[in-house]
Amino acid sequence: MSVAVVLVSGGLDSAVTLAVAARDGHACIALSFDYGQRHRIELSCAAAVAARASVLDHRVVQIDAAALAGSALTGCGDVPRGRSEADIGTGIPDTYVPARNLVMLAHATAIAETAGAHHVYIGANAVDYSGYPDCRGVFLDAFEQAANLATRAGVEGAPLKVCAPLLDLPKADIITLGLELGVDFSLTNSCYDPDPQGRACGACDSCTIRSAGFKAAGVEDPRR
Amino acid sequence: MSVAVVLVSGGLDSAVTLAVAARDGHACIALSFDYGQRHRIELSCAAAVAARASVLDHRVVQIDAAALAGSALTGCGDVPRGRSEADIGTGIPDTYVPARNLVMLAHATAIAETAGAHHVYIGANAVDYSGYPDCRGVFLDAFEQAANLATRAGVEGAPLKVCAPLLDLPKADIITLGLELGVDFSLTNSCYDPDPQGRACGACDSCTIRSAGFKAAGVEDPRR
Repeated sequence: MSVAVVLVSGGLDSAVTLAVAARDGHACIALSFDYGQRHRIELSCAAAVAARASVLDHRVVQIDAAALAGSALTGCGDVPRGRSEADIGTGIPDTYVPARNLVMLAHATAIAETAGAHHVYIGANAVDYSGYPDCRGVFLDAFEQAANLATRAGVEGAPLKVCAPLLDLPKADIITLGLELGVDFSLTNSCYDPDPQGRACGACDSCTIRSAGFKAAGVEDPRR
Repeated sequence: MSVAVVLVSGGLDSAVTLAVAARDGHACIALSFDYGQRHRIELSCAAAVAARASVLDHRVVQIDAAALAGSALTGCGDVPRGRSEADIGTGIPDTYVPARNLVMLAHATAIAETAGAHHVYIGANAVDYSGYPDCRGVFLDAFEQAANLATRAGVEGAPLKVCAPLLDLPKADIITLGLELGVDFSLTNSCYDPDPQGRACGACDSCTIRSAGFKAAGVEDPRR
């Protein structure tokens, strides 16, 4: 059975991505990162999502917080609140973490090579996160090319494929797809700034996008 | 003054690379990685090299050893010894660490973006390390392209340049260049498997290449 490395953040998109990777016939290694993110509840959500999906393994890799500084998500400045959906799509937001997907995909590539996996799945989405440069297909394609030039597998003719099955889907379609694949959204967190009990703030960009997505999909969000 | 991020491992090549970056007019942030490497003496050499070069800052970033497994340099298998120079250049060696330069350059890109640096220097060399896929110019070019698609700076028209000034130089030329630029090679370590006192083994691939380089340059290696 082919093995895939799947980036699992604990959020809604990566939970659906993990389900898609399994549907595609892969045995999955779920990969999460501890990079000192404010929304640490994500890591326990990631563990719950991975367990529910019966992954081969769930690995939590530390990323030195000194490398991923400079974002409202890692402690610099305030998480924006109360912005409309229309506002969220404009410009590069304060929650952009410099080169985050580049660093995460580099780790995933190293782990894939060691595990003999030829697929890396990432829940990047260019619709809701149009302001994040590293959520664009053009970046993912360039990364795949660089990764295959950096690795033994790439050089020896067993190249890595970077799969972003949600890239062009609106949130409502992601939710519908997840429900079809049996994803339990009650296990996921999307909030950038949850309270100490892990409850979503309901006002950050990510809460706004999630809430609008469930509304457009015509279903109730099982997580409060 | 423009700022450059320079990967400094504590070895000979990166010490010369740091000197070249300074010669090119950059104020330098030296960046080293602690990834559980066997040859940990490198980290103290890196600190000494960085201090001697009067860098702006020397940062040591942790890389989770779980991500960079599968190499003789990180504890899997034995470091090869006693191979001839001719043997060293063939195939991908056991000391290849999966995707190491990819992971390191990804971190350097994140740090460069946060520091407002537009240059990353790496002492990659395609002559002595022809078996390492991630020491080739074709990889570095592809990485640069991916990095610029992942970052704010790249998108906003202030792209990052990945500089590998030693890429095509034989070891003797690197040593000569370093001496011209005042590099103190006594501070550097190249051995893959030094003894607990930090003395080079004299038999691993890296010792063999270093020794042949000093011989070809016609100078004495100041480090024993």
